[in-house]
Amino acid sequence: MQEQHENNRPSRRYFLKTAGAGAAAIAGFSAFSPSCNPASISSAEYEKFFGQGDTILFQGDSITDAHRDRKNGQFNHPAALGDGYAMLTASELLGKLPGKALTIYNRGISGNKVYQLDERWQQDCIDLEPDVLSILIGVNDYWHMRQGRYDGTAGTYAKDFRSLLKRTRAALPDVRLVICQPFILTETSAVDASWVEPFRAYQESAATIAAEFGATWVPFQEAFDNALSLAPATYWAADGVHPSMAGAQLMANTWLNALK
Amino acid sequence: MQEQHENNRPSRRYFLKTAGAGAAAIAGFSAFSPSCNPASISSAEYEKFFGQGDTILFQGDSITDAHRDRKNGQFNHPAALGDGYAMLTASELLGKLPGKALTIYNRGISGNKVYQLDERWQQDCIDLEPDVLSILIGVNDYWHMRQGRYDGTAGTYAKDFRSLLKRTRAALPDVRLVICQPFILTETSAVDASWVEPFRAYQESAATIAAEFGATWVPFQEAFDNALSLAPATYWAADGVHPSMAGAQLMANTWLNALK
Repeated sequence: MQEQHENNRPSRRYFLKTAGAGAAAIAGFSAFSPSCNPASISSAEYEKFFGQGDTILFQGDSITDAHRDRKNGQFNHPAALGDGYAMLTASELLGKLPGKALTIYNRGISGNKVYQLDERWQQDCIDLEPDVLSILIGVNDYWHMRQGRYDGTAGTYAKDFRSLLKRTRAALPDVRLVICQPFILTETSAVDASWVEPFRAYQESAATIAAEFGATWVPFQEAFDNALSLAPATYWAADGVHPSMAGAQLMANTWLNALK
Repeated sequence: MQEQHENNRPSRRYFLKTAGAGAAAIAGFSAFSPSCNPASISSAEYEKFFGQGDTILFQGDSITDAHRDRKNGQFNHPAALGDGYAMLTASELLGKLPGKALTIYNRGISGNKVYQLDERWQQDCIDLEPDVLSILIGVNDYWHMRQGRYDGTAGTYAKDFRSLLKRTRAALPDVRLVICQPFILTETSAVDASWVEPFRAYQESAATIAAEFGATWVPFQEAFDNALSLAPATYWAADGVHPSMAGAQLMANTWLNALK
């Protein structure tokens, strides 16, 4: 449905043409929704994070994938972006920052662990030349080991994640990294309290690695923990891993909030 | 993915149990996103529109339908809500008002005109017992007539729309109506300037009828007209009728803003 160009990327001419008008126009955008909102995100606050014509890539597992049509590799297209936080975040960015002419892709794949991102990284990350790369990975690295389907440990996760980011920095020296905290919700159909301690090692590794690589850190676990005072865990994610619509919206808000 | 109960409706017991906690918790929700936002919607501002356990129904044509899975009649389910403004609005409401325990349905069907809503109104509206009913209808009433596929006029639209709302009020005396302004964007693949004058008759009828029935009015045409200063019409809706992700987000923001 979006304006498409040869090789499935927006023309640089369009960006150049609209850059000046866009910057001026953003200021006027608030004119038809002028309320002051203490519970949400101002476009002005996260706007600075994005450059003109930026390409944004969401990478990860099923939480990012979120039933996207994997045969549809388009950017800025709802079926290609799935029905999770990546699509909600993309909608917000495209709706609030029209002057930026952003290009937004989702390449999450259900079931992925870090090493599986690495296997498809050239095609599904580097070739897309993202300016902003968001990664949410880790729950399967723990879950599949717990189920006996995978023999990697928390140490494997950390080693593989560092290696992936070194490779990324080598190929894309200027990419801005957004690393998302893997999360779980206990008292749900798939997750109980016995997950919390062992999974914390993965969460701590992700945080350490985010700091090492100068990434923006998205604290999803804290967002969900806080949200439990408002509704039970199953409201946010029935199985404790895959968010509901409410959970996906909470994630989108948290992701945008982290960029301020 | 949502907590489901017999007969596909949330239990009233859950609502009663969570009502007090929800009201108290809403106030605390802003604690982890405390920014002041001049360009967006505060949950506090539209929160008052909704009662505890409200059922919200989105009705209309393809713009509301938005590729929803029509075999999936569930509430609060992303595939059942499609990929348009209804889904984005539902996500925002479910994410921001967890204490309200809202039930949100989409029953838009692509291609529908007013008389076709009437044909399926018992099953697709009245039987769902909505507390809030949002209707966006009219572009096909004009477009199909223009194409020679339908012989209804602007007068037919007004007559059919009034009749539908009288029937609705008779069956659901307390329903809160939200009537959305049908809209078009010229300089797009399907819509040119020759649409503007004849389509205005439909828009004016919708506005008049909204006022007659005490409905909340959602000014989509004005929102899109204002947005043209930020990006070209094709950014918001490639064919001038069906919104892009950016257009759908603009609609969701406009819908929520109308409820303040």
